[in-house]
Amino acid sequence: MPNADDFPRDEKETSRVEAFSDGVFAIAMTLLVLDIKVPRASDLVRRATLPELLEHEWPAFVAYVLSFATVLIIWTNHHTLFRLIRRCNHAFLLINGALLMSVTLVPFPTALLAEHIDQPGAATAAAVYSGTFVSIAVLFNVLWHYAAHKDRLLLTGHDRAAAASITRQYRFGPVLYLAAFLLAFVSVSASVGLCALLAVFFALPTRAGD
Amino acid sequence: MPNADDFPRDEKETSRVEAFSDGVFAIAMTLLVLDIKVPRASDLVRRATLPELLEHEWPAFVAYVLSFATVLIIWTNHHTLFRLIRRCNHAFLLINGALLMSVTLVPFPTALLAEHIDQPGAATAAAVYSGTFVSIAVLFNVLWHYAAHKDRLLLTGHDRAAAASITRQYRFGPVLYLAAFLLAFVSVSASVGLCALLAVFFALPTRAGD
Amino acid sequence: MPNADDFPRDEKETSRVEAFSDGVFAIAMTLLVLDIKVPRASDLVRRATLPELLEHEWPAFVAYVLSFATVLIIWTNHHTLFRLIRRCNHAFLLINGALLMSVTLVPFPTALLAEHIDQPGAATAAAVYSGTFVSIAVLFNVLWHYAAHKDRLLLTGHDRAAAASITRQYRFGPVLYLAAFLLAFVSVSASVGLCALLAVFFALPTRAGD
Amino acid sequence: MPNADDFPRDEKETSRVEAFSDGVFAIAMTLLVLDIKVPRASDLVRRATLPELLEHEWPAFVAYVLSFATVLIIWTNHHTLFRLIRRCNHAFLLINGALLMSVTLVPFPTALLAEHIDQPGAATAAAVYSGTFVSIAVLFNVLWHYAAHKDRLLLTGHDRAAAASITRQYRFGPVLYLAAFLLAFVSVSASVGLCALLAVFFALPTRAGD
Repeated sequence: MPNADDFPRDEKETSRVEAFSDGVFAIAMTLLVLDIKVPRASDLVRRATLPELLEHEWPAFVAYVLSFATVLIIWTNHHTLFRLIRRCNHAFLLINGALLMSVTLVPFPTALLAEHIDQPGAATAAAVYSGTFVSIAVLFNVLWHYAAHKDRLLLTGHDRAAAASITRQYRFGPVLYLAAFLLAFVSVSASVGLCALLAVFFALPTRAGD
Repeated sequence: MPNADDFPRDEKETSRVEAFSDGVFAIAMTLLVLDIKVPRASDLVRRATLPELLEHEWPAFVAYVLSFATVLIIWTNHHTLFRLIRRCNHAFLLINGALLMSVTLVPFPTALLAEHIDQPGAATAAAVYSGTFVSIAVLFNVLWHYAAHKDRLLLTGHDRAAAASITRQYRFGPVLYLAAFLLAFVSVSASVGLCALLAVFFALPTRAGD
Repeated sequence: MPNADDFPRDEKETSRVEAFSDGVFAIAMTLLVLDIKVPRASDLVRRATLPELLEHEWPAFVAYVLSFATVLIIWTNHHTLFRLIRRCNHAFLLINGALLMSVTLVPFPTALLAEHIDQPGAATAAAVYSGTFVSIAVLFNVLWHYAAHKDRLLLTGHDRAAAASITRQYRFGPVLYLAAFLLAFVSVSASVGLCALLAVFFALPTRAGD
Repeated sequence: MPNADDFPRDEKETSRVEAFSDGVFAIAMTLLVLDIKVPRASDLVRRATLPELLEHEWPAFVAYVLSFATVLIIWTNHHTLFRLIRRCNHAFLLINGALLMSVTLVPFPTALLAEHIDQPGAATAAAVYSGTFVSIAVLFNVLWHYAAHKDRLLLTGHDRAAAASITRQYRFGPVLYLAAFLLAFVSVSASVGLCALLAVFFALPTRAGD
């Protein structure tokens, strides 16, 4: 591919990559709903009332809420990064693409977790689930470090305290999600619970200069 | 997450959140069509003619039109809010995300209603359907009040009459959808009919200063 | 809904409605691929070779190409309208929404046609298919006439010849698709063939002042 | 369709076609995940453990990664073209639309390959898979040559070396993917392997003036 660095630069180089990323995030989040199965009317007659069948689907609802919230928070943080990132090059597009590949995968581990959380395969499902977030957390850090290294792609005259605060908060993501991954083999509820806690943690605002 | 308030502000801070929200609305609306099942050719031979099978699917068509129209009108109103909202902060992104989570859920209650409207589970389905809109209406109000409180995120020098007219009209949404929710346990048609009426009501333009 | 006319106008009022419409068009077109079923490996053993099974799916491929091309051309024409339309009001958003509702429906008649084109229900399927385009063509004209009536929403100082050429070409859409609809009851191939011809016709550029 | 050339030109004529293309690329890439099937809990009891069932799905994972990466790289290159393309006309929109039609088809050959790669239909599946990329590579070149011919749609004063480097690199795409197509009938692994190599090749940056 011709190197993007060869091309004339305009002021907001990242607008198309932001729009494209937004599209991928939005679709990955919206596809999650397809994993909540609608109980068939024919099942009602044979087995149970509709409220009972819906109640039986609680893992799908829990998985939906947890995955939607996590991807939303990743999007919010992605949005935060791009307030400081203004330039774009070839390698950056590829790293961002790898991050998006992990994000679009999310509906799969979500459905896997919903299907197996109360079954013999629960540990595997929870490991695949948290493992996907390990990979997202790693790629998120790679993306940010690539952009921020020697201010490579940052806005000229950006807020250094804000950049440092991003670096500080996100650096724990991979390790914490790795803990959730390992916990999956000990206790499925602890692993999923840690994923939920991490969503809350990354949703918390941190003041630059904490 | 580093606090968005720490970052430099540009003139149209909300453009990415608008684009992202548009994506989510567009996808949620487009996924609705997947719930209209195509009758299989093999069913024709055994059971009925194609027009008969399509006729039999009327609940799916009604649910499609009602849900599409309602989400469209929510989008239109969301669009109206953002003519006054120009700034964006961390909490605002999270509230908007929660609203989007309710919106992306819509294909599920729509399919549930279509499947069960003429079945024993109809009351439950109608309650889940209108209940989803209760949650959307509540979050829509929270979003607006958060942005409008002491003009927190509004355009400087915005039209106060327009803002007041938004406040006035939307404040009834949660209560009216709650009525549809309660009606579901008495009469399914009344509950769904009220949802349809509310779509028309929220689609009506109101003059600022009515 | 508070009337959009009450709000301050900026120069490109239609950018969000364009972005939203683009999203809906893009998703409706992309969902079409879901109707091309992948032959299962287990069907191979029992019935036929993979090339035979794929050949058997020709109606799905034809329907995919025809629907994709038609929706693409509708999008292209929608894009052309918005080179002249610069303002936006409440009624316009609702008309555009109704047009989008018809567009998002397209995957359903496409799958219906693919399933039944060589079956007893072919006439019904072709009628539903072309009927969907009747409704799109009507709404497209309503949208344009609403915007163009007394230059209501047009760019100040727009090219009158271009506007007149739009009016002239699109006015035949509803009648021609209605002909395809009626033909469905006489000859399915003639009906589908006319839909294909119309896609070509609306794809042709016409010089203003023809 | 009224000829786009008749309309007033603004500075960034291509922004809507870029946004629309981004939407189509993003959705096509995100839909790929739907082809990774979640093993049902009921299959566990009867046949195997969850890790075994997931292992059995390796073709779906390989196909997901390969298709996602390839479409991502096509998007990246599309993005590169539009740094030089600034104008837009009727024929260009149609060529871009045909390219998008091939791109949206990708989930189908991907699922086909995943289903049949270790089955008797493997050669056919690999041929359909690489054949789809032949058509994408051809249309990509047509798009670029149409835009670049006598600088028809390029930015005034663009970087000629960059344009020449694009022409040079992409011209081999159709032939190389054609080789992958022909290889499918000899060796499925060689064909799929070549597709993977080509993804890497088109992902490499090339300095203008190499």
